[in-house]
Amino acid sequence: MDQQEKTIEDMGEFGFIRSIMNNCLHSPEDVIQGIGDDCAVMGPLDGKVLLFTTDLLIEDRHFLKEKSSPFELGWKAIAVSLSDIAAMGGRARHAFVSLAIPSHTKIAFLNKLYEGMKSLCRRYGVNLLGGDTSSSPGGLFINVAAMGEMAEEEVLYRKGASPGDLIYVTGSLGGSAAGLKLLKGELSCREEIGKVLLALHNHPEPRLKPGRLIAESRAASAMIDVSDGLLSDLGHICDASHAGARIFMELLPVSGELTTLCRGRSLDPRDLSLHGGEDYELLFTVPPKNRQLIEETMEFSQACPFTRVGEMTKEKGVRVVTKDGAEEEERASRGFDHFLSGDG
Amino acid sequence: MDQQEKTIEDMGEFGFIRSIMNNCLHSPEDVIQGIGDDCAVMGPLDGKVLLFTTDLLIEDRHFLKEKSSPFELGWKAIAVSLSDIAAMGGRARHAFVSLAIPSHTKIAFLNKLYEGMKSLCRRYGVNLLGGDTSSSPGGLFINVAAMGEMAEEEVLYRKGASPGDLIYVTGSLGGSAAGLKLLKGELSCREEIGKVLLALHNHPEPRLKPGRLIAESRAASAMIDVSDGLLSDLGHICDASHAGARIFMELLPVSGELTTLCRGRSLDPRDLSLHGGEDYELLFTVPPKNRQLIEETMEFSQACPFTRVGEMTKEKGVRVVTKDGAEEEERASRGFDHFLSGDG
Repeated sequence: MDQQEKTIEDMGEFGFIRSIMNNCLHSPEDVIQGIGDDCAVMGPLDGKVLLFTTDLLIEDRHFLKEKSSPFELGWKAIAVSLSDIAAMGGRARHAFVSLAIPSHTKIAFLNKLYEGMKSLCRRYGVNLLGGDTSSSPGGLFINVAAMGEMAEEEVLYRKGASPGDLIYVTGSLGGSAAGLKLLKGELSCREEIGKVLLALHNHPEPRLKPGRLIAESRAASAMIDVSDGLLSDLGHICDASHAGARIFMELLPVSGELTTLCRGRSLDPRDLSLHGGEDYELLFTVPPKNRQLIEETMEFSQACPFTRVGEMTKEKGVRVVTKDGAEEEERASRGFDHFLSGDG
Repeated sequence: MDQQEKTIEDMGEFGFIRSIMNNCLHSPEDVIQGIGDDCAVMGPLDGKVLLFTTDLLIEDRHFLKEKSSPFELGWKAIAVSLSDIAAMGGRARHAFVSLAIPSHTKIAFLNKLYEGMKSLCRRYGVNLLGGDTSSSPGGLFINVAAMGEMAEEEVLYRKGASPGDLIYVTGSLGGSAAGLKLLKGELSCREEIGKVLLALHNHPEPRLKPGRLIAESRAASAMIDVSDGLLSDLGHICDASHAGARIFMELLPVSGELTTLCRGRSLDPRDLSLHGGEDYELLFTVPPKNRQLIEETMEFSQACPFTRVGEMTKEKGVRVVTKDGAEEEERASRGFDHFLSGDG
């Protein structure tokens, strides 16, 4: 293909990001981490480092305006960015919201949107300090930039995992992807089950408290949030850590609601857990010597459920081990890429 | 009108921003300035404060994709945010770019866009540290978040001006608005004139060096960048400082190219200077006792031309004084509002 004619769709999001990573640093003296992790890390200033992340939510890509309430949309827009701060182990401090708003948008809708944003900000003591507002010729665009802080020695990068490290996740996986299917009308189910799964999709809780705990314990070696799907995000840890990983299907945490939903359908809850995105759970790795420390820390705090799901390996690639012990190598790219996966 | 039915178009951008400013601070201990100035200001950390700003550029609102080169578009996207840091007197440090990209966009276009961004970043030692990338169902959306730093005692807010303070602007005004008219084909002119005016529109220089000089001199009392138009932005200084202002038409700095363009047409260059947006010049106020200090500082540095254009008054409102001494009160809202002005 003629390079001049290549489009972003041919290259994919991750390929494009890799291609622009050169010539980005012009005064690197206080840059600890640039492009390539959940947050940029800068500092230290007064012994603390600054974390910074920014996330886009686009109508008809990341959300369907008629299918989610404006309150939930505002909540989720903030949650997605705070989840990146949680993924480094940081304390979230400030948020900045850029909105491109179709001219016919009702003030009542925008007020509810901001109520959702402020509600989550209040919950975690995050200040809403500014942003930008413009009219949009297309749909609604929301960009949330978030700033956090933490002690430099506690920051958990993607790159710290070693072969042999145990792999954990918080909460359960796949519920948000199932909620999305319900939202789109691809599935239906009993109301009390649907409510739980829809909430996982529309109203995710950024794992800030567990993230701080894990970082403070100094027991973990790497961390990321599960936004694109377990295998895709684990793939990022493997790439950054120059290692591979093995996930045990039988260990994957699947909620009761998801199991109920899938029962009697051709849906495999473990498939949704491996590939479904937007869980906003934390995926972290722990050297075996710290196993007791991390498990006791998490259990004692009762911050959230957590599960050991696999281990890092010397051999590259991510493999899934089935119940009968068979290993299958997975293409991490089955996870979410905004361009390659087409429908976003 | 039924409040439930009111749209953002009825309320306007500035009205909407005022309406969301409550309940934004949940851990204000290190917040020096939240919503309401060119940047948020946080800190201090190690004696420095952090500046933070974010700006949206939207296809068919802020730019016409076919009418500006991707290099210039990238340059301008960064320049607009750095201009907000210049407006506080800060040193620009880091930038973060969120892009919503139509799937058919060519990689060659995106590479040029990033070349423009990186070129301006290199010029001012700014690091490109991250962002977000997604596919767009509409046009191209660019959000640039920028971070800066400076000494706390040097920060220039909008709120510091007092009656009697002299009003200055850097460079010349109205050229960018004229360039936009040329770009849209509303006007045409000799190539060498058009080139200069188009460059003012497409390739603005953020006034970071003059901004630092003015802040370091400690001679000024308030500062803002002229992005929405002189009268609109001066109106923000007046509102924040609880004062008014008087601008002398005869003193407005108009470039030779703009004067040439307007000659023999029904265009008034001074009207473009008062109301035209996107000049990205600095507007600053100086107590009369510091007049010699600021003028000598600016002249000695040769950083850029600067002109005294008026004075702050006790009487509220912004008035324009014509050649024959007549005073006319101007509605600041003739300046740019993304919703009220309709076509953006």
